[in-house]
Amino acid sequence: MNVAIIAAAGQGTRMGGNRAKQFLELAGTPIIIHTLRSFELCDAIQEIILVLPAPDTAGFLAIAEKHRLRKLSQIVPGGTTRAESVLRGLLAVRSATEIIAVHDGVRPFVTSDEITKTVKAAEANEAAILTAAVTDTIKEVSNGIVARTLPRKVLRRSLTPQCFRFELLRRAYEQADVLDPDLTDESALVERLGVKVTIVEGSSRNIKITNQEDLVVGEAILNELESWS
Amino acid sequence: MNVAIIAAAGQGTRMGGNRAKQFLELAGTPIIIHTLRSFELCDAIQEIILVLPAPDTAGFLAIAEKHRLRKLSQIVPGGTTRAESVLRGLLAVRSATEIIAVHDGVRPFVTSDEITKTVKAAEANEAAILTAAVTDTIKEVSNGIVARTLPRKVLRRSLTPQCFRFELLRRAYEQADVLDPDLTDESALVERLGVKVTIVEGSSRNIKITNQEDLVVGEAILNELESWS
Repeated sequence: MNVAIIAAAGQGTRMGGNRAKQFLELAGTPIIIHTLRSFELCDAIQEIILVLPAPDTAGFLAIAEKHRLRKLSQIVPGGTTRAESVLRGLLAVRSATEIIAVHDGVRPFVTSDEITKTVKAAEANEAAILTAAVTDTIKEVSNGIVARTLPRKVLRRSLTPQCFRFELLRRAYEQADVLDPDLTDESALVERLGVKVTIVEGSSRNIKITNQEDLVVGEAILNELESWS
Repeated sequence: MNVAIIAAAGQGTRMGGNRAKQFLELAGTPIIIHTLRSFELCDAIQEIILVLPAPDTAGFLAIAEKHRLRKLSQIVPGGTTRAESVLRGLLAVRSATEIIAVHDGVRPFVTSDEITKTVKAAEANEAAILTAAVTDTIKEVSNGIVARTLPRKVLRRSLTPQCFRFELLRRAYEQADVLDPDLTDESALVERLGVKVTIVEGSSRNIKITNQEDLVVGEAILNELESWS
């Protein structure tokens, strides 16, 4: 069995309003519901564990029912950092699980095909992450001076899902300081164990919605997707 | 005297329509005009050289007149690559120039303050570029496998303007293969000469408009700027 852990425990409200960003609406539906639907529709995932801010866990079951999210098995209260929230999701996973797919709740545009490809790559190679090309020129800096220009062809932006054999991810988290704010993805923890993480090429549409401009782009992406269907 | 070279010779029409992207409109005004206005309003710049696709050079003077672009001194036909276009702009610069500010024509949201800060940093240190923080986790990859996670704090995205002492930039271009498509910014050429390039922290609003989604973000940024004024 393959399980998705959706990390949506962020309490950031910097977009204004008093709702955390994962509950803001895109085309009339909360961002987190768009995200959950992508996993609901993906045959490579059998179960979903959702990590939410503690005050939101109780009310979410009714929302899940309304949107017919049948794979959603548990709603877990999050921690103080993203890593602590993922760890709490991980502690709720049943032992018969093969692959864990960790995904950001505010990345609603991941496709079923992208999830499947990443899960399959992890089944074959233990660890795999979805990535996108880097379009900017990236400089390494030191003391306010450019140290060097990084060769763009060998760089990738790390997206989610990031998929791992359950035992591997559990081992990686055992050795992690989950309160370290510099811990930005699961892959980094697994890399530290010396495990090879396979990269899967994904779309740059799979954006993380973190500010007002992202929300505007999100609406544009949705409109474009609709005009195709 | 300080001169801006605005590189707007791209012929890309992948956003649809038959107009290159620098001529598409944001709030009813071509992107390139928004860009030129930022430099027109900046006291640190005395003259502007605009590099356009060859077929567009003749018609542009009337547009420049209409928008009262008084600093625009020359309109130069571009080359086959961005670097070749900048080189053509450079060949049109008069010898009394102190600082050259090279800017992407499709970055209309640069502010007068950002231009000034970058020019001043180049006056003090020979070479300076505007940059923004990297928000994604960046991986270095090798043969489809993650080689390492780059420490995000020491990375910057290279924006424009990039400002240099005229003689320095001319020397850098003398040694450059301007047809190399991997040449993505002027700074890389100057770095090769062993010169220290100072970084100036800029806003992530200073986006490069290269696709339809960017255009939507652009409209959102403009609306936000207006709601502030």
